Amino acid sequence: MQNWMKRAVRGASLLPVAVMAGALAFAQEEAPSASAVSAYVDSSYLFLIGGLIVMFMAAGFLCLEAGLVRSKNASMQSLKNVALFSVAGLMFWLVGYNMAYPGTTILNGLFGVPDFIWAGEESLDTGYAAHSDWFFQMVFVATAASIVSGTVAERVKLWPFLIFVAVLTAFIYPIVASWEWGGGYLDTVWGFSDFAGSTLVHSTGGWAALVGAIIIGPRAGKYFGEKVNPMPGSNIPLAALGTFILWFGWFGFNGASQLAAGTFDDINAVAKIFANTNMAAVGGVLAAMILTAVLYKGKVDPTMAFNGAIGGLVSITAEPLAPSMGASVAIGAIGGVLVVLTVPLLDKLKIDDVVGAIPAHLVCGIWGTMIVAATGDATFIGQLVGVVLTGVFVCAASAVVWLALKFTLGVRVSEEHEQLGLDRADTGVEAYPEFAS
Amino acid sequence: MQNWMKRAVRGASLLPVAVMAGALAFAQEEAPSASAVSAYVDSSYLFLIGGLIVMFMAAGFLCLEAGLVRSKNASMQSLKNVALFSVAGLMFWLVGYNMAYPGTTILNGLFGVPDFIWAGEESLDTGYAAHSDWFFQMVFVATAASIVSGTVAERVKLWPFLIFVAVLTAFIYPIVASWEWGGGYLDTVWGFSDFAGSTLVHSTGGWAALVGAIIIGPRAGKYFGEKVNPMPGSNIPLAALGTFILWFGWFGFNGASQLAAGTFDDINAVAKIFANTNMAAVGGVLAAMILTAVLYKGKVDPTMAFNGAIGGLVSITAEPLAPSMGASVAIGAIGGVLVVLTVPLLDKLKIDDVVGAIPAHLVCGIWGTMIVAATGDATFIGQLVGVVLTGVFVCAASAVVWLALKFTLGVRVSEEHEQLGLDRADTGVEAYPEFAS
Amino acid sequence: MQNWMKRAVRGASLLPVAVMAGALAFAQEEAPSASAVSAYVDSSYLFLIGGLIVMFMAAGFLCLEAGLVRSKNASMQSLKNVALFSVAGLMFWLVGYNMAYPGTTILNGLFGVPDFIWAGEESLDTGYAAHSDWFFQMVFVATAASIVSGTVAERVKLWPFLIFVAVLTAFIYPIVASWEWGGGYLDTVWGFSDFAGSTLVHSTGGWAALVGAIIIGPRAGKYFGEKVNPMPGSNIPLAALGTFILWFGWFGFNGASQLAAGTFDDINAVAKIFANTNMAAVGGVLAAMILTAVLYKGKVDPTMAFNGAIGGLVSITAEPLAPSMGASVAIGAIGGVLVVLTVPLLDKLKIDDVVGAIPAHLVCGIWGTMIVAATGDATFIGQLVGVVLTGVFVCAASAVVWLALKFTLGVRVSEEHEQLGLDRADTGVEAYPEFAS
Repeated sequence: MQNWMKRAVRGASLLPVAVMAGALAFAQEEAPSASAVSAYVDSSYLFLIGGLIVMFMAAGFLCLEAGLVRSKNASMQSLKNVALFSVAGLMFWLVGYNMAYPGTTILNGLFGVPDFIWAGEESLDTGYAAHSDWFFQMVFVATAASIVSGTVAERVKLWPFLIFVAVLTAFIYPIVASWEWGGGYLDTVWGFSDFAGSTLVHSTGGWAALVGAIIIGPRAGKYFGEKVNPMPGSNIPLAALGTFILWFGWFGFNGASQLAAGTFDDINAVAKIFANTNMAAVGGVLAAMILTAVLYKGKVDPTMAFNGAIGGLVSITAEPLAPSMGASVAIGAIGGVLVVLTVPLLDKLKIDDVVGAIPAHLVCGIWGTMIVAATGDATFIGQLVGVVLTGVFVCAASAVVWLALKFTLGVRVSEEHEQLGLDRADTGVEAYPEFAS
Repeated sequence: MQNWMKRAVRGASLLPVAVMAGALAFAQEEAPSASAVSAYVDSSYLFLIGGLIVMFMAAGFLCLEAGLVRSKNASMQSLKNVALFSVAGLMFWLVGYNMAYPGTTILNGLFGVPDFIWAGEESLDTGYAAHSDWFFQMVFVATAASIVSGTVAERVKLWPFLIFVAVLTAFIYPIVASWEWGGGYLDTVWGFSDFAGSTLVHSTGGWAALVGAIIIGPRAGKYFGEKVNPMPGSNIPLAALGTFILWFGWFGFNGASQLAAGTFDDINAVAKIFANTNMAAVGGVLAAMILTAVLYKGKVDPTMAFNGAIGGLVSITAEPLAPSMGASVAIGAIGGVLVVLTVPLLDKLKIDDVVGAIPAHLVCGIWGTMIVAATGDATFIGQLVGVVLTGVFVCAASAVVWLALKFTLGVRVSEEHEQLGLDRADTGVEAYPEFAS
Repeated sequence: MQNWMKRAVRGASLLPVAVMAGALAFAQEEAPSASAVSAYVDSSYLFLIGGLIVMFMAAGFLCLEAGLVRSKNASMQSLKNVALFSVAGLMFWLVGYNMAYPGTTILNGLFGVPDFIWAGEESLDTGYAAHSDWFFQMVFVATAASIVSGTVAERVKLWPFLIFVAVLTAFIYPIVASWEWGGGYLDTVWGFSDFAGSTLVHSTGGWAALVGAIIIGPRAGKYFGEKVNPMPGSNIPLAALGTFILWFGWFGFNGASQLAAGTFDDINAVAKIFANTNMAAVGGVLAAMILTAVLYKGKVDPTMAFNGAIGGLVSITAEPLAPSMGASVAIGAIGGVLVVLTVPLLDKLKIDDVVGAIPAHLVCGIWGTMIVAATGDATFIGQLVGVVLTGVFVCAASAVVWLALKFTLGVRVSEEHEQLGLDRADTGVEAYPEFAS
């Protein structure tokens, strides 16, 4: 429970006790103590370095997604990744941050009433530089948005997609985050535990992607009756690079979510989180490889191994500290198995997830969150409530937005554009003008 | 003014007061105080980590440039990027660092007289490990050189190009840097303000690139009368990855240029710089996207979005601390607009800039420097003097070097080699031997 | 000697004095002192950040290797890189770490008797978080494994290769490391000096690769009598990116191997290591470029420049602190020359090293280790013993494993599969399905 309590402290207005404690401390000593400054510097530094490492995951998603789409859409997919990171930053500044850590709430704290346009003020009381926290939270928001872009690739319209990202990063994700990290409903009422965001970040992105995939529909030609037409990715080494960049970034994602590293206990925690995060990815890769070898006559699909790594990483994200390294391998391995089993299941349901983001982020996000009831300081029912409430809310909100877009601007490119490829049709710049057949 | 004063202190011989202060401090306390050591460690650590993040921008330029040239020159462009980073490191050790922070100067401090071969000596007085500062400064030099390589790609000869890089990194850039960060003319006389180098790094590279593009001439077949023949980049996802790597690196570029992070004020500054740096890139991307959509019938050119990000980042580099986040968005957005408007302008002038480095680094570098008169602690006239003096000097010096190379070794490959592609002609190794048509 | 003494301290049971010193310190002061905690935090933090930077080298090897194989094997090569990093992590947890720092030894400390399954316990006495050290050591293990995968690419079978990696990372590498960093034979008896692992990591990987290349044999069609059939890499820009990622990672590899950065002396050392590491790469690149230009009629092979960088980096790894920056350039330059000369020599011997890993890692590893006798605190004979003992042991152990695999599972894919390409034959996923001819 240690971690989300710390994250919760940020929602200062929801926890007036924190403000009081700060005031008390100030009354006792007028000049800030050296150790308070030192802790402030250390925490801010951790948020900046950790945030920078997580920021680089945007490059990882770019590589993974550009590598797994067909070459006729790779230029557009690159553009979407750069654009969504921009939209996420803009909206999280305009609305999102204040929505996640709101000053005023309604419905018993269920929804915040944000002040628009965030303006951080630096104060020693908070324990960290305001802008360092904004930056750290912002890169998590962008991650949720990146998950969506992979699933709905190759047929979603550029601007409607970016409008969806704007709503996701301004409202949908921040509201979910407020329930836990903002010190809200899930935290105070249900003791929900989600260390770095298996549910809050990854499932949120995954549910939004799932609803998008259903409303937008599959790519033309993907499904003929019961037959699934494979549409292989155009650049597997690029996808592999993306996998390693994400793996690299996850050490910042989970490690810096300890939120402090300056004490014996905190640095030990960060170190164990690093080791466990790695072991979960290891488990995910190897389980996915072995299972595909068994299922597909000895052939090992690299994209399953890559998604196995991601699935393992998502699985450990809800509780990367408490499990042993061996348990982390197992948690990640089950994540890898879930990825391999869910990918064909989605195809059976004719839900077209271009990069396999729903198995890796949504399914493993649920798995990783539920297992905290066994490994961490949480109850089965508390975790279930968090998973279900997030799912219901994100699905409902996403459906409203996707449908509103569908019946106004449209969410899907024309058949002609889809056939031609989004690169030529909508960007005028082919990804690989000299190579493609 | 805070920042360049700190950078200026390094030019110790130009500011004898700093040496005196150090001596005084030493007289007062014979044993170094724990806090002096601690500050020394922190600053050195910041230079090393910040420098490492900036060093990775070399990989960003590589990806951007290799992705934006045609495939027949991508192997050569990769080689040039690795080679220029090497030449920059060598020359900055042999000459450049001592040129930027010279022991002896002539012409009233306008030019330094360097000791050749830098040999750092570590002293607690300086406040940071000498080698950490050398490393941090060196990666900035390399950035300036990388800017040039993109503009003159696909037709400049390898060795003459590397000789130009040698002169740029040994003399041209260090002289410009000495005027400001070496505590020289622009700093002391004009109060010129350029936090992390919109002018000193980016415009310097941009002017050198512009002069090179004019003297070397456009690629064969690029311009027919008034007609511009598009020569699309061969690997757009790679260019997108380069953009994200540069974006990542910029947090080190601007953030670590605060030069200290160990106090309440310094870490707050670094945190705000991170947020502002990101917002400027956001503004650059979104403005470039919207403007291209308006100008080009709804089509959004990804390469404009990428250069919009870079243009936004360059624009905020001269003063990433003082503006609000909203002002940073606006500064970056104007940078993005400048990129979109300047690219066709250069084509109209038949100046062939392969990757769009002149719009992003030179034009936005000027814009970013001038706006400091409004946002920071600087005057319009002081900023203008800095911009103009840098422009005149770098153009003159670059012209001398490019012309000397043109009339001796030649700067341009033969028509035959250009037609064949530099990869086959000059490296013997094709970038994509199995793909290219 | 400073550094390997520090690394040696970790082998606590081999150096009971360290344990005694810890106990003594505890007796003197019951509560841990603030400075002990602070040093503990700093060292752990360095291991985590340094380890993370080294971890990213896995992405560098991926890019380098996927770029230098033919496109029909690039998907498999990507998979192997992700898989080997996973296997290395798993085995170093199960066996390797305890093998390198064993509790019980036999044969006068020559071989450790490991406890299986490592379970770190955090204690202030050790001076760093146990898991941070595990992570830092683990990424070095993975580096050794990555070296092998490049050499034996394009024809080794997936699962037998991974079994070899398992043995390498569980036993072979850890035993070699125990002799030095575990406080064993080479350290205590011979005063062998290998700061960050020119021999222990790079030569170990190189010897294992060499033996593998010989036992597995060259790629079909590579050698016809005396004729060498060039098989050019499929994606040179990707290989260039890999080079820069490795260069980036090497600052963590060498810099963090100082193992501490919290004092005046330690941070100065780290800073000098950064500068020297860079200069060695610079020397390697430029020497390789000049030499290839001389040897090949003015043509400069980019892959030689890339391997020149790596060769220079490996050469400085055994002693990156003691030499001057100029000496570092020279050490790296000789490394670059060795690369250029050894690549054709291997072909003459019909040893097929797909990416040039043996020249860069093995030959330069030996060179870098021997020159420590001149630059560092070591004797010629001590270094020679280390080089030879490592070579004999790794070759013998690797031969046993490769041969056992050859006569059981087989180590080589069928001719048919090799012809078709491993991607289609064994993964079912082509690297570039739309491009390849």
